[in-house]
Amino acid sequence: MAEIADVVVAGGGVIGTAIAWRAALAGLDVVLVDPEAGDAATQVAAGMLAPASEALFGEGALLRLNLLAVRRFGSFAAELESAAGQHVGLRREGTLAVAYDPDDYAALARLTAFRRSAGLDAEELDSRACRALEPFLAPDVHGGALFGGDWSVDNRRYAAALGEAARSAKVRTVRDRAVAVRTGDGRARGIRLADGGDIDAPNVVVAAGCWSGAIDGLPEPLRTVVRPVKGQLLRLRHPAGVPPVLSHTIRAIVRGTDIYLVPRADGELVVGATQEERGPDQTVTAGAVHDLLHEAMSVLPVTSELILAETCVGLRPGTPDNGPVVGRCGPDGLLLATGHYRNGILMSPVTADAVVALLAGQAPAPEWEPFTPQRFITPDGPR
Amino acid sequence: MAEIADVVVAGGGVIGTAIAWRAALAGLDVVLVDPEAGDAATQVAAGMLAPASEALFGEGALLRLNLLAVRRFGSFAAELESAAGQHVGLRREGTLAVAYDPDDYAALARLTAFRRSAGLDAEELDSRACRALEPFLAPDVHGGALFGGDWSVDNRRYAAALGEAARSAKVRTVRDRAVAVRTGDGRARGIRLADGGDIDAPNVVVAAGCWSGAIDGLPEPLRTVVRPVKGQLLRLRHPAGVPPVLSHTIRAIVRGTDIYLVPRADGELVVGATQEERGPDQTVTAGAVHDLLHEAMSVLPVTSELILAETCVGLRPGTPDNGPVVGRCGPDGLLLATGHYRNGILMSPVTADAVVALLAGQAPAPEWEPFTPQRFITPDGPR
Repeated sequence: MAEIADVVVAGGGVIGTAIAWRAALAGLDVVLVDPEAGDAATQVAAGMLAPASEALFGEGALLRLNLLAVRRFGSFAAELESAAGQHVGLRREGTLAVAYDPDDYAALARLTAFRRSAGLDAEELDSRACRALEPFLAPDVHGGALFGGDWSVDNRRYAAALGEAARSAKVRTVRDRAVAVRTGDGRARGIRLADGGDIDAPNVVVAAGCWSGAIDGLPEPLRTVVRPVKGQLLRLRHPAGVPPVLSHTIRAIVRGTDIYLVPRADGELVVGATQEERGPDQTVTAGAVHDLLHEAMSVLPVTSELILAETCVGLRPGTPDNGPVVGRCGPDGLLLATGHYRNGILMSPVTADAVVALLAGQAPAPEWEPFTPQRFITPDGPR
Repeated sequence: MAEIADVVVAGGGVIGTAIAWRAALAGLDVVLVDPEAGDAATQVAAGMLAPASEALFGEGALLRLNLLAVRRFGSFAAELESAAGQHVGLRREGTLAVAYDPDDYAALARLTAFRRSAGLDAEELDSRACRALEPFLAPDVHGGALFGGDWSVDNRRYAAALGEAARSAKVRTVRDRAVAVRTGDGRARGIRLADGGDIDAPNVVVAAGCWSGAIDGLPEPLRTVVRPVKGQLLRLRHPAGVPPVLSHTIRAIVRGTDIYLVPRADGELVVGATQEERGPDQTVTAGAVHDLLHEAMSVLPVTSELILAETCVGLRPGTPDNGPVVGRCGPDGLLLATGHYRNGILMSPVTADAVVALLAGQAPAPEWEPFTPQRFITPDGPR
């Protein structure tokens, strides 16, 4: 006996769950399909809400989308906390970017100029000023810059709140894997589950992160657009009685390598992350853990005294141009919302807004125009 | 209603379980008391059976006891495997000791001379000969020595086999914590459990590792003799399709720090270990994991490609003279078997032999004479 809904969303990470919640709030009957309670990339994210430091030079369209996303995040998070009745761990202390050696500082100066060109705050600081803000930084840190407008969110609290908000909005969750988009008479009809069951729905949203291409029924060029980009990160904790060693998110360039340290209100410190092209491999490797710890200890020596509570691996959904893939494609009623790469948490509110607009027959915000699926189907298309 | 037995053993690590098994084989009715299935230090050990490399200069009596222990291990393990119907992962490839730099090599040369003075094999090897034995060693390893007589055992398989052998010999296990030795009329009468229950037995063996001193009823000077010495170690695994990168146990001196890498038949590689005086703290720290990985990668760079499967912490039962504490003490019927520090696995067979001899009114092997509890009660006593 098939479940029947207005919308079926394949993928229960932050993207899929945010879409499901907002679609339900818009009055639609929604089923969310995911084999596990929470997707890997969502659970592993650091939760930085930093529009410019994640956008590379030449990625102006992505930066504009990130800026939209960061402007939207605060109101979305407030509404979410109210709907879910729980906090998401939003922190507004800003990011302190630091450079370990003079070459690192040159790279940081270019990033700072890029941020300013995007109209974002960036205050250059010498080594002493960095240590005045964060006294546990190593004295040999060369210098830094304060990005006061950057926030962070506790990814796991945020994902849990989205799940709770979706439940309270009557989204039904099916614990199974979507294997195919079902079609008939030229339009989407629902989802086929791994156990053989069906969900019937006139609207199908594929939001399965790096696994989206494994779902049958997507237009052929889109099956290979999203690839897994492995990220390993560490969760540290303070020993009993030790006060928090950081108040700002630290982004550090250490001998040419980027790392970040993101403090949480509950005393956790997230250290990340590798970016590895290793297919769907999800093993924690000795070398990655060593390198993350080594670089963290270079800029924040007290890291060595913290508890290594967890080593984790996630697979980011990467795309050829590092931009997300959000919009209609293939048969009528099929929507794609994936490819968010390193920005899934940040972009989840605006992605939900865009998909809910499309479901209502409206146009999403213009910042989304360069990020439709069509750019991979029609190579000479927009962008 | 109290359980009644001939012998009650407090502590279910390898020492207590080996004693329980052998006492049951000797015809005694035995109850083993332990709150968990397997003691922490036992589960965390690397399982090296290396009599000389663990004995320091000036510890001649300890070396003689270790030599007795290593001679006994093979026949004990064979009998254990037969009784338990399972393998313990004994490996006889020997230990390859390597030195990272010239200063490390000078330290290794002293260890090699010490081993020879104890009548043990030690074959000096240059860097090229080391790499002929272990091709994945870093080319900058300065030199080494092959200790062909050293074995290793898989500590977890060994502990599991002891548990199985004890069960098959009708040892009864009580899952609770021993809080006191009960006495009456000047002799031991049994054990008081944390839940308030009692075990009645005329013979009480305290084999609770670093927790032994927490059991009421021991002679006062012995309550503080055993202290926890924290050890952190790592368990690595080979990725699918990668053949074992080591065949020998490697002991490395890396810029003055000792580490070991112990390969297992199932593809595990154990890397250890810190020695930390931090009381009963059992947290995994970022600095320890970093340092172990850093030193392992210095001598065996391919370590970086292995999977970090587990980080673990154990508390070794250390004593002021690094020697175990085995023998009668206090009221009649009370025996102590603890303080095995870094040699618990190696010494478990001879410790069981010694305790079973004492239970039968016989003298243990003469190598045990310097290691009675009396040496801490009567400071001018033996040794």
